[in-house]
Formats: sequence, C-alpha cells, structure tokens
Amino acid sequence: MTSLKDAMAESAGHVEDQLDRLLAREDAPEAQLIEAMRYAVLGGGKRVRPFLVMETGKLFGVAEEPRLRTAAALEFVHCYSLIHDDLPAMDDDDMRRGRPTVHKAFDEATAILAGDALLTLAFEVIAHTATHTSPIVRIELTSLLAKAAGAKGMVGGQMIDLAAEAAATNGQPLDIGGITRLQRLKTGALIDFGCAAGAALGQAPNRAREALRGYTQDLGLAFQIADDLLDVEGDEAAVGKKLFKDADAGKATFVSILGVERARDQANHLADQAAEHLSIFGAEADHLRDLARFVVERKS
Amino acid sequence: MTSLKDAMAESAGHVEDQLDRLLAREDAPEAQLIEAMRYAVLGGGKRVRPFLVMETGKLFGVAEEPRLRTAAALEFVHCYSLIHDDLPAMDDDDMRRGRPTVHKAFDEATAILAGDALLTLAFEVIAHTATHTSPIVRIELTSLLAKAAGAKGMVGGQMIDLAAEAAATNGQPLDIGGITRLQRLKTGALIDFGCAAGAALGQAPNRAREALRGYTQDLGLAFQIADDLLDVEGDEAAVGKKLFKDADAGKATFVSILGVERARDQANHLADQAAEHLSIFGAEADHLRDLARFVVERKS
Repeated sequence: MTSLKDAMAESAGHVEDQLDRLLAREDAPEAQLIEAMRYAVLGGGKRVRPFLVMETGKLFGVAEEPRLRTAAALEFVHCYSLIHDDLPAMDDDDMRRGRPTVHKAFDEATAILAGDALLTLAFEVIAHTATHTSPIVRIELTSLLAKAAGAKGMVGGQMIDLAAEAAATNGQPLDIGGITRLQRLKTGALIDFGCAAGAALGQAPNRAREALRGYTQDLGLAFQIADDLLDVEGDEAAVGKKLFKDADAGKATFVSILGVERARDQANHLADQAAEHLSIFGAEADHLRDLARFVVERKS
Repeated sequence: MTSLKDAMAESAGHVEDQLDRLLAREDAPEAQLIEAMRYAVLGGGKRVRPFLVMETGKLFGVAEEPRLRTAAALEFVHCYSLIHDDLPAMDDDDMRRGRPTVHKAFDEATAILAGDALLTLAFEVIAHTATHTSPIVRIELTSLLAKAAGAKGMVGGQMIDLAAEAAATNGQPLDIGGITRLQRLKTGALIDFGCAAGAALGQAPNRAREALRGYTQDLGLAFQIADDLLDVEGDEAAVGKKLFKDADAGKATFVSILGVERARDQANHLADQAAEHLSIFGAEADHLRDLARFVVERKS
C-alpha cells in the first residue's frame, strides 16, 4: 500500500486536473470571472476535503470520474467560502496560501461574484449525469451539500464566528461548548460531507455511513484544534497566511481556553478516536486512519 | 377567469407564505443570519419570477406545493443576487423596495452571508422530495437553476455589467449587442428558469418548452428595457430605489442607445412577440400573455 503522503499527492494531482477541466477559460466579456475562479481554486492546498471523497468512494468501489467530480464540487464550495471569508467586511485577510487573496489580486466585486459562481458551479457539477448515473444519488448529493454549506451548516458557522468576535470585544468570549458548535458548523459540516458524499456515491449501507460520520466529526474537531495550534505556534511562511489573528482579536479558540498542552492532548485524543470509528473497515481504510494522525501533526 | 392583477396578487400571497415557512425563525446563535434572510426576502416585490413558475406549472397540471416550492427557490436566488448587487463593492445601493438594503439594515458581513445562505437554500429546497416525487425532475431543476444562476448565466451577466461600467468610464460603453447579451444573462437567465422550471415540473413536451423559452427570451428583454425606462422616467417613491443611476454612471442602457421613444417601441414590440410564442396554448396561458403587456406598462 502506498503511503498516505503519496496517496494524498496523487489524489491532489488528479483533483487539480479535474478542477482545471471544470474551469475552462473562455474568450468572453465575463472572462475575468473565470480567471478569478481559477485563481481561487487552482494551484495549491492539500486538498484534504477532496481526499475524503476520493478515499471513501474507493471503499465502496466507486469509479474515479464520479469521485473526482464530487471532490471538485466540494473543493469549489470550500474555495468559495475562503474567498468570501477573506473579504474586508469579513476577516479582511490579504494573504492566503502564500499569495494575495482574491479581492487583492482582482477586486472586491470580482471576489464576491467569483465566490457566488463557485458555489453555483458546485451544484451544476453534482447535478450532471457524469457525476453518477442514478438521479437518486445525484439528488442525495445535492441535498447533502446544500445542508452542509447552508445556514445550518458552514454559513451558519461563519455567522456564529462573526457574532463571537463581536461578543469577545465586549468581554464575552465563547465557552468550549460554543466553540465546539461553531467549529462543527463552520469547518465540520464540509468535512462530514466529504465522507458522506463518498458513501452516497457508493450507495453504502447505513452502518458504514454512521461509522464515517463518527470519523469525520472527530476528524473535523481535531483539524480545527490543530489549526488553532498552528495559529499560535506555526511558521508564517509555511502556513501561508497571517498568524496570531485570533489571539490578536481576543477571540476564544480551543487553545485560548484549553491552553497549548491540553489542546494538543485533545487533538491527539480526537485523532485516535476518529480512527477507531473505522474499525468496521479493513486495511482499505488505512489512508483515512492515517489522515486523522496527519491532520494533527501537519505544519501548515 | 380572474384578472392578471388578481392572479398576481393571489400568487404573491401564497408565495409569501411559502417563503415564510421555509425561513423559520430560530433561537440559535446564528439567528441574525435567518433574520437578514427574512428581511431580504419577505414583505415585498411583485414576485414576477415566482408567478412564471406558478402559471407555467399550472399549464401542465402541476400541483400547488411543487410549484410553490420551486417558485420560492427561484425567489431566493433572485433576492440573494439583489443583496450582493447592492453591496458597497458592487452597486453600493442604500435603498431597495423603499427600505434600507440588507447591508444597511444589518452589516456588510451579514449581507454577504445572507446572500450565500439564500443561494444554498434554493438548492436545498429544490432537492427536497416535497418539491417533486421524481428525482429525475428534481435533478433537472437543480441543473437548470445552477446554469441559470452561474457564471454562464446571472453571475456572468453581473460580471459583464461591472466590466461595462469600467469601460464606460473609459469612454467605451457597450453597443446594443453587448447590452442585449449582458441582460440575457443578468436578468434573462432567471426569467427563463421561471417558465423552464414550471415546464420541468410538469414534464412538458419539448415543443411546449421551446415555445416558453421564446416567450421568456422576449419577456426578459422587454422587462429590462422597461426597467431602463423607469430609471429615467419613473417616480422614485413608487420605484423604491434611487433613479438615474445608470445615466449618472455614464453606463450604456437600451434607453441611452435607442432613446426613450424607440426603446418604448422596442419594449412593446417584444411584449407582443412574447405573447405570440404562446400560440400553441389556449386561454389557460392568458395570464402569461397579459404579463408580457404588464411588464412594459408597470410604473414600479
């Protein structure tokens, strides 16, 4: 079996090609929109979320094309959320993955529209017959993605995050329960979708779906705690964005509440627990098990 | 048969109730997001786009619930586009339908997220089994909506609009062909979707779909020319937003190129032509025929 590192690199390469194909350049007045979408999506990232779709789909014998298209749709949604999150009215970030953010490289209006168009494209890609021959599966994916990305998922989490920032400046930071719920929505919902989508493509039995949901719930939190740790301990050049942002904003994070030591323990515990959820699978789930370890040990 | 006015009012009332049901208030930290979505969607508008779904679906015997849900999804997309269009980085409008725009009533970040959440909710509503028992129909609606709203539809049109504004300030306004293409994307694509969705719900034959497409293509342009006329001739209080914006920005419109007289002739001609596309239908399409006349004669 290939190592996790090699498997992730191979998957990321295939996903990159798929993203590129789905964002074909055009000679039209709206060409700048496509350029901004390409800028936001191509050429970077570990593609962790797509990897979840690719690996989970493989568990259930799903062919490569359906996995790649679904993985691309998920990455479009993730990238749209980053574009909008970076806007001056939101987190006001100038750098992302070591490059100027979309509204810096283009302009704010183009950034807003590129985000809107990527979210819409995700649904167009999912709905296309090439994603799965069964319309039942495609509509299930549509429904799962809309729920994961919407007001009771990712966008709801972003709203809580903004409210929490305002509350923190009034001396009322979130407690650990509040932060956990925030992160389950803001970052967890799309991570859940990664495995749920792979299982849906493979029309997997409920027992497998529940195990995968347990896995992603723990993985998502571990991922976020690791992010908070990187924010205070990371190397700015490696991480590719401004650090100490949360601390500077007085925002509560897992690290500010638990401290570095306990936060790291908690992340490690969640990573172990995530892997244990996969006990119903054999060695074919080893990459997913290793991924749980990877997300808490990464340096960027 | 009821008058168009009564039919539109009745439809708008039912659509309003449906929108309200789909945007249930919540007692959660993200409550402000739902409030902003409700503010943007409820309590106003002629609901022309939903009316297209309601009336077209009726032509093919579609029950009320599927038509209402699809109409609501379309209105969510329309309202999201208005929220983002009004943002400071885009058109920078303070008033809409006689009330402060969403970013004025709330704040910019909330407005961006409310738009994102409405777009996502549209797909969630469409994908739900209550919208149609057949997953084939639901996935067709998903695909049609994504194409109408995306980079080769509405958002593409918004991008061209921004590029055109920049070009106009450099003394290179669009010509009539450029404006026509812009409007076919920016406003036409969602109007097309209105009738296309009604026909999809009713699994209508191709001949009927083509006739409806001819109808909405002419209707959409007529609608836009009427909008341009209102921008220079309308009553600001009735229209509910700032007028003379396009003229002040030096932007080319149908009116700036054709002049008021010829623009009005063109709108009337398109309205007649739109109605003629419906000759394959009987009296059951009279509301759609009358609507073509209505859109060019409206005062707001």
